[in-house]
Amino acid sequence: MDTFGRIFRVSIFGESHGPQIGIVIDGVPEGLELCPEDFAADIARRAPGATGTTPRREADEPQILSGVYEGHTTGAPICITFVNANTRSSDYSQFDAMPRPGHADYVAAVKWDWANDPRGGGHFSGRITLPIVAAGVVAKKVLEGIDIKAELISIGGCTDKERWHEMLKETAAAGDSLGGVVECTATGLPIGLGEPFFDSVESLIAHAIFAIPGVRGVEFGDGFAAASMRGSQHNDPFGPLGPTKNGAGGVNGGITNGAPLVFRVAFKPTASIARPQQTYNFKTEAMDTLQIKGRHDVCFALRTPVIVEAMTAIVLADLV
Amino acid sequence: MDTFGRIFRVSIFGESHGPQIGIVIDGVPEGLELCPEDFAADIARRAPGATGTTPRREADEPQILSGVYEGHTTGAPICITFVNANTRSSDYSQFDAMPRPGHADYVAAVKWDWANDPRGGGHFSGRITLPIVAAGVVAKKVLEGIDIKAELISIGGCTDKERWHEMLKETAAAGDSLGGVVECTATGLPIGLGEPFFDSVESLIAHAIFAIPGVRGVEFGDGFAAASMRGSQHNDPFGPLGPTKNGAGGVNGGITNGAPLVFRVAFKPTASIARPQQTYNFKTEAMDTLQIKGRHDVCFALRTPVIVEAMTAIVLADLV
Amino acid sequence: MDTFGRIFRVSIFGESHGPQIGIVIDGVPEGLELCPEDFAADIARRAPGATGTTPRREADEPQILSGVYEGHTTGAPICITFVNANTRSSDYSQFDAMPRPGHADYVAAVKWDWANDPRGGGHFSGRITLPIVAAGVVAKKVLEGIDIKAELISIGGCTDKERWHEMLKETAAAGDSLGGVVECTATGLPIGLGEPFFDSVESLIAHAIFAIPGVRGVEFGDGFAAASMRGSQHNDPFGPLGPTKNGAGGVNGGITNGAPLVFRVAFKPTASIARPQQTYNFKTEAMDTLQIKGRHDVCFALRTPVIVEAMTAIVLADLV
Amino acid sequence: MDTFGRIFRVSIFGESHGPQIGIVIDGVPEGLELCPEDFAADIARRAPGATGTTPRREADEPQILSGVYEGHTTGAPICITFVNANTRSSDYSQFDAMPRPGHADYVAAVKWDWANDPRGGGHFSGRITLPIVAAGVVAKKVLEGIDIKAELISIGGCTDKERWHEMLKETAAAGDSLGGVVECTATGLPIGLGEPFFDSVESLIAHAIFAIPGVRGVEFGDGFAAASMRGSQHNDPFGPLGPTKNGAGGVNGGITNGAPLVFRVAFKPTASIARPQQTYNFKTEAMDTLQIKGRHDVCFALRTPVIVEAMTAIVLADLV
Repeated sequence: MDTFGRIFRVSIFGESHGPQIGIVIDGVPEGLELCPEDFAADIARRAPGATGTTPRREADEPQILSGVYEGHTTGAPICITFVNANTRSSDYSQFDAMPRPGHADYVAAVKWDWANDPRGGGHFSGRITLPIVAAGVVAKKVLEGIDIKAELISIGGCTDKERWHEMLKETAAAGDSLGGVVECTATGLPIGLGEPFFDSVESLIAHAIFAIPGVRGVEFGDGFAAASMRGSQHNDPFGPLGPTKNGAGGVNGGITNGAPLVFRVAFKPTASIARPQQTYNFKTEAMDTLQIKGRHDVCFALRTPVIVEAMTAIVLADLV
Repeated sequence: MDTFGRIFRVSIFGESHGPQIGIVIDGVPEGLELCPEDFAADIARRAPGATGTTPRREADEPQILSGVYEGHTTGAPICITFVNANTRSSDYSQFDAMPRPGHADYVAAVKWDWANDPRGGGHFSGRITLPIVAAGVVAKKVLEGIDIKAELISIGGCTDKERWHEMLKETAAAGDSLGGVVECTATGLPIGLGEPFFDSVESLIAHAIFAIPGVRGVEFGDGFAAASMRGSQHNDPFGPLGPTKNGAGGVNGGITNGAPLVFRVAFKPTASIARPQQTYNFKTEAMDTLQIKGRHDVCFALRTPVIVEAMTAIVLADLV
Repeated sequence: MDTFGRIFRVSIFGESHGPQIGIVIDGVPEGLELCPEDFAADIARRAPGATGTTPRREADEPQILSGVYEGHTTGAPICITFVNANTRSSDYSQFDAMPRPGHADYVAAVKWDWANDPRGGGHFSGRITLPIVAAGVVAKKVLEGIDIKAELISIGGCTDKERWHEMLKETAAAGDSLGGVVECTATGLPIGLGEPFFDSVESLIAHAIFAIPGVRGVEFGDGFAAASMRGSQHNDPFGPLGPTKNGAGGVNGGITNGAPLVFRVAFKPTASIARPQQTYNFKTEAMDTLQIKGRHDVCFALRTPVIVEAMTAIVLADLV
Repeated sequence: MDTFGRIFRVSIFGESHGPQIGIVIDGVPEGLELCPEDFAADIARRAPGATGTTPRREADEPQILSGVYEGHTTGAPICITFVNANTRSSDYSQFDAMPRPGHADYVAAVKWDWANDPRGGGHFSGRITLPIVAAGVVAKKVLEGIDIKAELISIGGCTDKERWHEMLKETAAAGDSLGGVVECTATGLPIGLGEPFFDSVESLIAHAIFAIPGVRGVEFGDGFAAASMRGSQHNDPFGPLGPTKNGAGGVNGGITNGAPLVFRVAFKPTASIARPQQTYNFKTEAMDTLQIKGRHDVCFALRTPVIVEAMTAIVLADLV
C-alpha cells in the first residue's frame, strides 16, 4: 500500500521515468493559504547540485490539480504532480540480467514477475520522495507553532563538517559512495500526542522514516546508547516545566511529554557506485562485472534532511 | 488505536491491575491446531523469575474465548484473555503527585485529564505484552517453515554473557537498572514480502517493535554502522543463491530478498529504580525525593526477546 | 474483518455456542460514567420473551474486562464479554449434510473448508448482536444531546400494530416466520457530519446496518419512493431553520443537514422455520426434507430496533 | 476520507471546475494489459448526449500518469486524470446566498466555513464519478470471468421503456426532473466472497453504492419486499447446483453463495431543476425565488448504470 495516515493521509504514485509522479493529500483542513511558490524552498533543499549529488536536473515544478480554490485549501483532497522530463532510460537496460547490489531490481523482478517498470528504479526510485517533500510543505502549514528541523550530522562517520567537501570529492574520484546520519528535532509539540502501543509516536515516526529509501536505523533520544546506561542516568526527572533532560527524546509511553522530539536516522551509502562490482549475471548464470553508468549521488543523505522533515510533519499533522 | 495489521490483525485491551487483559486476533486461517498448552513455552520465556527480573508472579493461564472449535481455529476472530490476580495497587498511589521519571504517569495524566487507571501503569503496563506473546504464538503457527529467533546480545553495553549475572546483582544492590540490546533473525522468508515505501518490511517491523514499551532504537543489517561505510563495503552482491552477504538485513527496497531478516532493538534500562530520585512534586510544587517501592525488573530487556519474536511474527503473518 | 470505525472502533468476537462472546471498543473518550447496570435496559429490549421470539434465555450479564476505573472510562479500550450458558449444540448436527435454506451453513462450510464452528450458527449467529448492543450503550453515552430511536413499523407487510399479536400466533402455528421493517430516527445531530463520497453518512450507516444478519434493504428519507418522484416534489427547500421538509432523510451530499436522520431497514423473515423444507442433502446427493427443531424467533425483526440503534450510535460516535 | 478498499484501493480527487480530476488505484495486480482506449466504451456510457442528459460536453480523455509500462500494469499505483475544460463557473455564483435545495451547497458551506470550491458542486460534483468509471474499467479487468451488468429498470416509477422518451421530454418542458431505479447483476462469482458482519458483501456494496451522489436506497434480492414475506416464501432451498431461487440476491450470512449477486439502487430525481423554487435567501434573510440556469440532466439516473457497475467491480476486485 502506498498510503499513510489516518486523518491527514497521503497516497503516492509514479515511477522515476514514467510520465508524472505525484501525491494525493487527504484530510487537510480548509482555509490554509497554498500556492505553487510555497513549495520552492523545500524542493530546492532536496534538489541535486551540491558536491556529492547527482547531476540529473528536473524543473520540479509542482502542479496543484485539486483541493485549492482562490489560493486556499478547500478541505477536499489535494493532488500535486510533477512531470518527469529529464530521463535517460537506456541507462537501465542492463539490470535485467544483472540486478544492482543494494537496489530493488532483484526483489521487484521476482515479486512482480518482471512486469515492473525497471527504468530509474521505477516506483522504488528516490525520485518518489519529491511528492513527499511537497506533502511535507502542506503538513508544515497544518502544524502552526510547531517547528521541525532536520540536518545531516555525519557523513561516512565524520561529524566534522569542514572535512565533508574533501571526503565527497575523494570518494567520487574513487567511484564509491558514503552514508550519513540525519538528526531531526521537533519543538512546540503539545503534551499528549500519540497513544500507548501501536500508535506510539515512535511507532508512527519510525514507520514513516523507514519508508524513505536507504534508511538502516532510527533511534530516539539517547537511542542505542540507552541500552548501555543505567536507569539513574537515562531517566529524565521532572522539573516545574517538564522533563529537565531529554534522554527519552520527548516521548514517554509512546506519548509526547513536552520536551523536543529528537531522533536520528542512519542512511546507507548510495547503492549505485561507479566502481565495478562483482555480482551474479542471471542470464549467463555466472559471476560477472557490473559497471553502473547513469547519474547518481555520491552521498544521497545530503538531500534527505528535508525528506525526514516532511515525513515527520506528515506524521505529526495526522496526530495533531 | 490499539490495533495493528491489515489481514492478520490484533487488538489489545486491558490494564495492569484491571480484572483481565487480552487480545483479539482476526484473520487467522481456519484449520490450525490450537490449544492452551501451545502458549506455555513462550509465556514462560516472558515470565519473571531469573536474576534481574521482578518477583511479581501471575499464573498467566490463557483463556481462549472464541475462534477455536474442537482444537482447531475456525477462521473467526480468536479472543485470548488472562486474569490479573497478583496486584498490589497501593504501591501506586503516590505517583499522582510525583510522576515517575521515565514512565507514562505524567503524559497519561495530562492526556486523559487524570481519568486514566494509574495502577501498575494501567494500560501502559509492560504486562500488556503478555497477550502480544500469545498472539505471537498464533502468528508463528501461521508462519509454517519460517523460523524467528530473538536473543539478548548485550546488557548495559556488555556482550560477555558470563559477566551478566554479576552485573545484575551489583546493579540491583545499587538500586539501579540496566538496558540491553536484542537481536532478532527470521529465516525461511520467501522473496517478495513487503512493498516499496509505506508498507516496507522495515516500516512495519519498526512500527510494531516501537510499540513495545521501552524501545529506544531499531536498526536493520549493518544498521547505524552503515552510515559510516562506503557503498562498496555495504552493498550485498548477488550470487547464484541470492545475496552473498547481509549488510541490508534481508531487505532491499522494502522487500525481502531471501537472506535472513536481521535487526537489533535497543531497550532502555528499567525506569522504576529503588534509588531515590530527585524530581518534581506537582502537589507541593517543589522538587522532592521519590522513593519507588513496588516490584520491578532490574533489566526488563531480559524478558523481551520473546516479545520481539511475537511482534515480528505478527508483522510477518500479516504480510505472508 | 470484524472491526468497524476509524476513531470510535469496535471489534467483535465469539460464536453462538462457544465459551464467551464479546466486543472491544476503542476510542472511547475518558471520564464517561459506565457501570454494568447501564446495559440492562438495552439488553432487555434485545432479549427474547415477547410473542414471536425464541424461548432461548441467557442471563446476558455484561462483564467489563478493561477500560473502566472507579466507574469511569479511562480512554483505554473497553472489552465487554458475555458468557454463553444455555446452549443445546445437539440441535445443529444435522446441518452438515443439509445446510439450512437462508442460513450461512453452506457458504461457511465452503469458505472455511468445514473448519468453522457450526453450532448455533457459530460466528454468524444473531447472538453476536448482543455485544453490539453493549457497544451501542457506550456509543450513546458519547453522543450526548443526540437522540436515536428505532422502532418496528411493519411486520409481514402490516403496519397496524393491533394485528401483530394475532399474525405472530398464526404464523407460529403454521411453523412459518415473518419479516419486518424498522425505522430509525436520530435527532440533535450537528450540521456537517460525514464526507462526500466514501465516508458519506449513508455509506457508513448502510455499511453498519447491512452487517446485521438478515437485512435486505436500507433506504434514507423518501427512499425507493424518491425514484418515482419529480425533483420539485423530492427537493427539500430551505427555511430560516434549515430544510422545511425531509425527503433526503437529513443528509445532503453525504453530510448531515440539521434535519433528523431518518432511514428504514428491511428485515427478512426468520430463516429457521418449523415447517418441513425440501432442500438438497449433500451426503445422499438427493433432495430431502429438512425439519428444523431448535428454538427460533417467529419474527426476529421484533428484537432488532435496539440493534439498529446500536449500529447507528456506533457510526455516529465515530463521526462526531 | 476519499479512499475505499483494503487491497484493491481507490482514492479520488478533484473538483468539477478545478484543473483536473482523477483517481489513484492501488493494489492492481501486475501484468494486466491496459491502454487509454480500454476506457472509451464505459466512459461513453456515462457521457451526456441522450434525451434527458446535460448538454455539458467534455472530451473525457483519460491520462494514465503511472503504474503502466509498455502497455501492462506494473503492480505500482495507477493514477488516471481527466482535464476539466468546458466549465462555466459564473453559473454558480448565486448559490452562496441561496443554497440549492437537494444539493450540498448548504452543508459544504457550513462544514468548511465557506472555504469550499462552490463551482459546479466542487468536490461533491457528479463529475467525480468519471474517475470512478475509469477505476471500474481496471477493476473489471481484475475480475476475469466475472460479468457485471447494470441497467436502468424504471424512470419516475415507470418500467415501460417505450414511454421513457416522452416522459423525459415532458418533464424537461416542465422544468422538472425524474428519478430512477438501477438493477445490477454480477455473475460468475466464486462461493465464499465476503465475511460475516462488517465485511459482508452487502455492507461493502452498499457502502460503495451510497457513495454515488443521489442514491436513496439499496436492496438485495427480494429487498424491501422480503419484509412482507414468510420464511417459506423467501428462503432459497438448495439443489445440487446451489440455491434453486434467489430471494437472497446471492448472499447468505454476508458471503456469496454462488447464485448471481443481484441488487437494486434508487436514484433521486436531479436536484437542479429549471422550475423556480421557493427557498431561503441567507443574505436577505427571507424566503426568495431560486431560478437555476446552468446545464443539468433531467434524469441523471440514465447515466448511472455504468457507475453502479464500476463501484460493484471496485468492491469485488477488493474481495477477490
